[in-house]
Amino acid sequence: MSWCWSAGVGGAKLAHGLAQLVPPGRLTIIVNTGDDFWMYGLRICPDLDTLTYTLSGLVNPANGWGVAGDTFETLAAMKRYGEDTWFGIGDRDFATHLLRTQALRRGDSLTTVTHKLTSALGIAHTILPMTDAPIATKVDTVERGELDFQIYFVQQRWQPTVKALRYDGIEAASITPEVRRAIESADVILFGPSNPWLSIAPILGVPGMRDALIARDVPRVALSPIVGGEAIKGPAAKMMAELGYDVSARTVAAYYGDVINGFVYDALDAQMTIDGLRTATFDTIMRTDEDRAVLARRMVDWVSSWGDSG
Amino acid sequence: MSWCWSAGVGGAKLAHGLAQLVPPGRLTIIVNTGDDFWMYGLRICPDLDTLTYTLSGLVNPANGWGVAGDTFETLAAMKRYGEDTWFGIGDRDFATHLLRTQALRRGDSLTTVTHKLTSALGIAHTILPMTDAPIATKVDTVERGELDFQIYFVQQRWQPTVKALRYDGIEAASITPEVRRAIESADVILFGPSNPWLSIAPILGVPGMRDALIARDVPRVALSPIVGGEAIKGPAAKMMAELGYDVSARTVAAYYGDVINGFVYDALDAQMTIDGLRTATFDTIMRTDEDRAVLARRMVDWVSSWGDSG
Repeated sequence: MSWCWSAGVGGAKLAHGLAQLVPPGRLTIIVNTGDDFWMYGLRICPDLDTLTYTLSGLVNPANGWGVAGDTFETLAAMKRYGEDTWFGIGDRDFATHLLRTQALRRGDSLTTVTHKLTSALGIAHTILPMTDAPIATKVDTVERGELDFQIYFVQQRWQPTVKALRYDGIEAASITPEVRRAIESADVILFGPSNPWLSIAPILGVPGMRDALIARDVPRVALSPIVGGEAIKGPAAKMMAELGYDVSARTVAAYYGDVINGFVYDALDAQMTIDGLRTATFDTIMRTDEDRAVLARRMVDWVSSWGDSG
Repeated sequence: MSWCWSAGVGGAKLAHGLAQLVPPGRLTIIVNTGDDFWMYGLRICPDLDTLTYTLSGLVNPANGWGVAGDTFETLAAMKRYGEDTWFGIGDRDFATHLLRTQALRRGDSLTTVTHKLTSALGIAHTILPMTDAPIATKVDTVERGELDFQIYFVQQRWQPTVKALRYDGIEAASITPEVRRAIESADVILFGPSNPWLSIAPILGVPGMRDALIARDVPRVALSPIVGGEAIKGPAAKMMAELGYDVSARTVAAYYGDVINGFVYDALDAQMTIDGLRTATFDTIMRTDEDRAVLARRMVDWVSSWGDSG
């Protein structure tokens, strides 16, 4: 059994639960790179790094991103030089960005670089960027016009009102052979509890991705990031309302459309019916490491039972 | 009065003494860049940085290089990734290399970048790289063949026996307009107590530099790095012997040849006579900040007296 897991920042926790459940080498995680950007001449890939730090056990548990116990001396020196320091890069985190940027400049693909970095940290599963092409999510806002994603998300703390999103470079991108093989060989395809517009849309927008997924006659299951009409974390609910949608798990399921054939949402929303899909409701809020393992186990058990029930 | 001061690592201390003596903006320091190299995709310029940290007061006083109180978390993370970490870059130091590399990649010259960085740290004097062209000092050794400078100097702790040196890229280099103006307008030209082959030769080797210096009818004075037959710091004496020279201040004076018309060496060698040059002997070993100021004052007073004595 191999797994294909599309994760944004919100997906890293469940990915961690799955990684402990699935034998080494059998889990492939396809990651959004629309959040990637340049800072201080370095290529920074927040979603890849969050997942890498989570699966290697290095992650700062208080944030869910960054390296535990990291210090910020380089950033303090940047400030002394008069530089902007609104994006919090820790000293240990800088090593990741330095090595990635060096390898990219030498001509390595992001896929190759990511493999080297994750292997060096002892990660036995495979983490794949959704594409090797550079993609940049742009957020069009009422108050400030179009913003680069990290300006919207980190510098402006997702406060501007979202009018629309686009994914710069997406038309020219293509899915990598590694992503294609992962999808073609997956026994189950899961989508993390991630923001549809920020984390899932860029992945599904890579030309060829949607068709490759839909072609697979296996469980293709998304987990809702909306619980009881609110986002577990981040701007998903706020953005959903600003874009004119009903803030609910049902909106998330509709967003995926025919990409999925199954949907998991929170037990809190158990009264909600979602037609045309196999559904299950679990406790989906992961506060502890044990919560992750339990939810991963429940989802695995549930999709494994599909064959039994026809 | 403006000053032109050619300094390697060994020259930074006296440069600091001079910087306190000379009015803001009147001192120009021309720096060896033969030690520059690439590490982790960053352009590192040890001599420029040593001088920058010294003049800004940030320098680690224990080493004479690096930033005081710096930490090494990025380097520790590099090691975790399996990278070589023989060159000790501190976390605050990384900011300098990042900003320099980013600006160079954008197309700024090393001269421009250096001006930005030193200005941001409040340095009122001018620090100029000897050229904007990349130069790489190569050390040919008996035991290990030709080594990149930093491999010889830091990784091998200057233990291999030196056969010869060359300065890769020097023929194609040229002196910058800024360096030319500094030399043409200098009232005094001083050379730091630096290693002739490692720090001075690259500077003098830039096409046009030697002629520009000799053309100036002003005091052109070098300070000996050799005291009592030994180097104050670093491999100068060892290298001098390996290259077949008598290890003495006289060898240093002869090395400069007609580039200088005056020479300062240590009072310990006062019995030594050096023909064909104005000479002075002072206590030249700088252990404290006060030592720097005193030696700088003595050299300034001495060259100022040349006009009086004809």
